[in-house]
Amino acid sequence: MLQNDLTHSLSVIVGNDALLTGEPAAPYCADWRGRYSGNALAVVFPSDTQQVAKVVKLCAANNAAIVPQGGNTSLCGGSVPLSQSVGGGQIVLNLSRMNQVRAIDPTNYTMTVEAGCKLADVRDAAEKNNRFFPLGLTATQKYCEIGGNLSTNAGGINVLRYGNARDLVLGLEVVLPDGRIWNGLRSLRKDNSGYDLKHLFIGAEGTLGIITAAVLKLYPGPQAEATACVAVRDPAAAVALLSHLRATCGDKISAFEIVARSCLDLVFKHIPGTREPFTGKHEWIVITQLADVLSAPLDEALGEALRTFGTGIIEFDISSNKDHAERWWKLRKHISEAQKCEGISIKHDVSVPISRIADFIARADAALHNAFPGIRIVAFGHMGDGNIHYNISMLDAKQNQAYIAQQEAAVNKLVYAVVRELNGSISAEHGLGQLKRDAIRDYKDPLEMELMRTVKQALDPKGLMNPGKVL
Amino acid sequence: MLQNDLTHSLSVIVGNDALLTGEPAAPYCADWRGRYSGNALAVVFPSDTQQVAKVVKLCAANNAAIVPQGGNTSLCGGSVPLSQSVGGGQIVLNLSRMNQVRAIDPTNYTMTVEAGCKLADVRDAAEKNNRFFPLGLTATQKYCEIGGNLSTNAGGINVLRYGNARDLVLGLEVVLPDGRIWNGLRSLRKDNSGYDLKHLFIGAEGTLGIITAAVLKLYPGPQAEATACVAVRDPAAAVALLSHLRATCGDKISAFEIVARSCLDLVFKHIPGTREPFTGKHEWIVITQLADVLSAPLDEALGEALRTFGTGIIEFDISSNKDHAERWWKLRKHISEAQKCEGISIKHDVSVPISRIADFIARADAALHNAFPGIRIVAFGHMGDGNIHYNISMLDAKQNQAYIAQQEAAVNKLVYAVVRELNGSISAEHGLGQLKRDAIRDYKDPLEMELMRTVKQALDPKGLMNPGKVL
Repeated sequence: MLQNDLTHSLSVIVGNDALLTGEPAAPYCADWRGRYSGNALAVVFPSDTQQVAKVVKLCAANNAAIVPQGGNTSLCGGSVPLSQSVGGGQIVLNLSRMNQVRAIDPTNYTMTVEAGCKLADVRDAAEKNNRFFPLGLTATQKYCEIGGNLSTNAGGINVLRYGNARDLVLGLEVVLPDGRIWNGLRSLRKDNSGYDLKHLFIGAEGTLGIITAAVLKLYPGPQAEATACVAVRDPAAAVALLSHLRATCGDKISAFEIVARSCLDLVFKHIPGTREPFTGKHEWIVITQLADVLSAPLDEALGEALRTFGTGIIEFDISSNKDHAERWWKLRKHISEAQKCEGISIKHDVSVPISRIADFIARADAALHNAFPGIRIVAFGHMGDGNIHYNISMLDAKQNQAYIAQQEAAVNKLVYAVVRELNGSISAEHGLGQLKRDAIRDYKDPLEMELMRTVKQALDPKGLMNPGKVL
Repeated sequence: MLQNDLTHSLSVIVGNDALLTGEPAAPYCADWRGRYSGNALAVVFPSDTQQVAKVVKLCAANNAAIVPQGGNTSLCGGSVPLSQSVGGGQIVLNLSRMNQVRAIDPTNYTMTVEAGCKLADVRDAAEKNNRFFPLGLTATQKYCEIGGNLSTNAGGINVLRYGNARDLVLGLEVVLPDGRIWNGLRSLRKDNSGYDLKHLFIGAEGTLGIITAAVLKLYPGPQAEATACVAVRDPAAAVALLSHLRATCGDKISAFEIVARSCLDLVFKHIPGTREPFTGKHEWIVITQLADVLSAPLDEALGEALRTFGTGIIEFDISSNKDHAERWWKLRKHISEAQKCEGISIKHDVSVPISRIADFIARADAALHNAFPGIRIVAFGHMGDGNIHYNISMLDAKQNQAYIAQQEAAVNKLVYAVVRELNGSISAEHGLGQLKRDAIRDYKDPLEMELMRTVKQALDPKGLMNPGKVL
């Protein structure tokens, strides 16, 4: 089939108003950070699962590759077409029109949603039913879509308590690479009746099939919260504090974030209305939160836990007042934005065992400062999950462009070497996409890469699902 | 290679004292309920992963099938050889000698254990380090092994709060069907660097490879507990009560079990030292437990929640005294034993959405009593997970043998039809093994069965891993 004929046939499936080509298609062919852009024959917006299946069947018959796309907020170029040409061309299959909440069962604590539901809308729909959907991505949840969240196994601030996106799913509906529809929309807490196929598609970044709907777990909403801002001596004290808090407050810990002085300085400089949380200046602060369904006096429990911790804490402040706590959260939430004001940086999203976080920061800091005098390291993140965002730029912003062009590979090599020493992962929550597709081959066991290719080959023998991503 | 030569070569790998044939091998070729037995050329007891790998390589080269075995407590014939002959014969590969705790990292809340560790020993090792491993199978944990627990994705009483075995794993070491060793022993809370392969092997009942070690998640141990015994009007009231408790007590609910009058009568009759929990006789009771890491007054919270529930509760009693609560737990824990005193029964381990449990019981009861007058239905189980154990026998025990021989298939058909109507699963926590291998083909979407076979074919093209189980 000629490419024009293919485009025409696609428009017959989805309707003329649900297919873009040329200039109008361009925004869907580039990522939101402006790092990746590619070429698609067309962008299609199917409105239901049957249309997705028909599009996939047609593409498969014509050897056209398919790039599944949700809110297109990938940080790794996972949701845009490749810039190089691909066999029978690339079709972007955008799921944003599939945005129905199909069902909510408050008694079963589940909801069934289509892939194109925005994360914020999923959370709102749960809340309207007096339930809570815990996946929270403060920066993007108004834009990102649940299908993308599941395809990338998204993380965020509440992983410590509720798990990754993967842990919040009971069932999936998936359009397979040959266009058949797998209805795995079960809403069961227990089901040991064969291989758990949903876990193959979750986190596969669209390379094994297209998630079109999911049954999500819901929770009772927290009634009580208490937040503490804690100045700690160093990352080792933060690691010990987290362990102490888990032992004393258990599942109530809903967040444990670490922020380095370099982050705070950037935030104070660029984000209006922010200021030092303490009268003294400290090198490391932790923001931690307890939450409970019972309206218990959590600030007392948190205060008791912090007071009994020992010498690693320099000072702390506790509040169960939301507005007060939000002042601290603002420091954490605006780090990326503040950093952007000083230009681009080399970003890492790594994880190590929680017990090795202090080692990671110490070793990576030493290696980088030694190799590259004059750099600034911006380290922060979800310490409760062992997940550190670790970004490197020059103190003098004007030098950044040249530094990154010349040294990005060398910086990555140093950081990833420390990650490897500590049995960590070079992609904790953002996925691989195009960004880390090459790097992962150096850091993952060749046998595991082979197993991944075996699975890919078995499910997508033509290699048409999101080619050039992950593997 | 002749079968004698194969046996000799195996003994060279594992040592003469770690290989059994003939009569001494027989206990490892039959299941503990005496329902399944088969024939193995030999039973081998490798002592480390390298030996497992060598055994598997040798078997693969000789087309001998491998039956991985732990504590051999499968309820579905999953861990014993087939009775029919299999290509190059069957080897039972028992992992009980691989029983080392390789590492415990209390700060990371993880431990690395070998497959042959008994579940009770895993729990003890965690406790010695002031940590808690929540998988609890009261009837078998002194015998079953963690490798088997993971291969079958075991459930138990604490699933409601901590998830199934699958949810308690961060990493795996697996010997693949060709004898290569996949080292996926990561201890990371977040790792989005490709397909999550561990979920393929967990719950696959040894048909895709042999789990030889695992990194398990640990938790802080509960400091406070409160238990309630609640007489409820009917299963619908129990469903509503669970929903109410989740909304008011949230994650603190660590168990929610339902028990029918028929179970209680059997327990009182056969288990010494048991008696009615209330002065009145009630048709349905619920035993529920709250647990918390904080030493909070949970009995107050539980009492408040029960008092505010409404008319579905007939009466209730609460205790935070362990011995007192154990009197109630004894009623629940001894149901299977009491039932056994009256002979065999047709057992079901099914799940439905929690909101449909009352429907399930009502519909299945009606269909069965209508079709088979004179039966006794023993219904109990993990209501908090939507998982009901639903066992059928004749009221007159003497008729059981004949009834089961003639009607088992018809009974299963009626029960499974209701499960299907309610989008449930015919195997909630016990797996498929040999027992439900045929039935599952009637109840699972053919496309899902095909996907399972595709995965099996890709990873075990020779079909030598635990043949005749699952699919």
